[in-house]
Amino acid sequence: MHRYKILLEYDGAGFCGWQRQANGLAIQACVENAIYKFTNELVEVIGSSRTDAGVHAAGLVAHFNLSKQILPGTIVSALNFHLKPHKIAALACDEVDENFHARFSAKKKLYEYTILNRVARPTLDHGRVWHVVSPLNISKMRKAAKFIEGTHDFIGLQTSQCQAKSTLRTIERITIKKTGDKIFIQIIAPSFIHKMVRNIVGALKMVGLAKWNDRNIHEMLNAAEPINYKVTAPACGLCLVKVFY
Amino acid sequence: MHRYKILLEYDGAGFCGWQRQANGLAIQACVENAIYKFTNELVEVIGSSRTDAGVHAAGLVAHFNLSKQILPGTIVSALNFHLKPHKIAALACDEVDENFHARFSAKKKLYEYTILNRVARPTLDHGRVWHVVSPLNISKMRKAAKFIEGTHDFIGLQTSQCQAKSTLRTIERITIKKTGDKIFIQIIAPSFIHKMVRNIVGALKMVGLAKWNDRNIHEMLNAAEPINYKVTAPACGLCLVKVFY
Repeated sequence: MHRYKILLEYDGAGFCGWQRQANGLAIQACVENAIYKFTNELVEVIGSSRTDAGVHAAGLVAHFNLSKQILPGTIVSALNFHLKPHKIAALACDEVDENFHARFSAKKKLYEYTILNRVARPTLDHGRVWHVVSPLNISKMRKAAKFIEGTHDFIGLQTSQCQAKSTLRTIERITIKKTGDKIFIQIIAPSFIHKMVRNIVGALKMVGLAKWNDRNIHEMLNAAEPINYKVTAPACGLCLVKVFY
Repeated sequence: MHRYKILLEYDGAGFCGWQRQANGLAIQACVENAIYKFTNELVEVIGSSRTDAGVHAAGLVAHFNLSKQILPGTIVSALNFHLKPHKIAALACDEVDENFHARFSAKKKLYEYTILNRVARPTLDHGRVWHVVSPLNISKMRKAAKFIEGTHDFIGLQTSQCQAKSTLRTIERITIKKTGDKIFIQIIAPSFIHKMVRNIVGALKMVGLAKWNDRNIHEMLNAAEPINYKVTAPACGLCLVKVFY
């Protein structure tokens, strides 16, 4: 048995997300089908993260096992050939120890969320940003982000589909940068609950609009049960940038 | 008569370029039609640059005249409303003196060309980059760029469609930056001849591949007549970033 680690980039639009589903085209299924085409092996590809429908990845990591040994460079070429015409690309491949697990070996993950904060709708960034028309107050958002950093029980943000046993999570860092009319929110943490990044971004946007204040953020971080805030930022603005091992 | 200056962003894919043509959808025509819809005036919109088919703009400047006075903010909103569903957005508008001319008043223009230099085809950057598989030598490209800076007769790069009386042009600066597997080439000059940025990028790519050396660049810069180098970089990687007045 040979285990391979691959680095994937994809445009999440048009996919039902990473995970194989009965209905809809999943990135996982596309990769498994591509592997089958050049190996004749039916494998399960385990991803570092189960990105939701519409969420992008610049560096999702996955692993799978093959009975035969294939050169990593050959795997990259064959994957890219058979992944056409899907907007999924294999950027790298390594043969790894069988103890390596794309999900469980991951130490932390970096997500980036992009907001286009202006009146005119996106053209060049269409499908890659959340278009927010009203001006956002970045310094208020940065202050709120400081409260969210650290360890909290994020049960307040738990969705009904969330399968996590515990909702305790540690946000290592949130950085908010503004370049022109784009706002980039980077969030780094060992792990996240379902839609956690998009809910945090949604909460920060409420703060940026002055519709939420510090008290709302504290309530969110001290909730005793799931609260349906309905602030979830849309999937298209989110990108899994990097997984650290 | 009231003259308005507008700032436009567009995704060049699907357009025959800036300039109105008998066949094909031009950005200029879309903007003129949008203006007609809310003013009932048939105007000519003059652009700072006649970008080619497929070339993008983050900040093309244009001007037009209206017989009636309209608030610039209203023009922005009405333009964006009537430009839908085209990937063209009006970012700003000002009423300007009638001496202002989007093309002739321009002091210099900044173009950015993006190369994706890796084996895997683009997914997230699809339609926005030139995909070059073989590794490019950036330091060789930077050295060649230094030769191209300054004033030269660019007749060697003149295309058959070029309408310029003189092919003498001054490149103020070429900067080449690499971030991850993307190479950004910024070129700033008071004016350019037809396809000049794409031909310079194509020449730099030949240098980066070591298919061209310093001698080829010197030949290009000292040509006495148009030379059909066939090195033109594709339109999709090019973006008009900013026009300076």
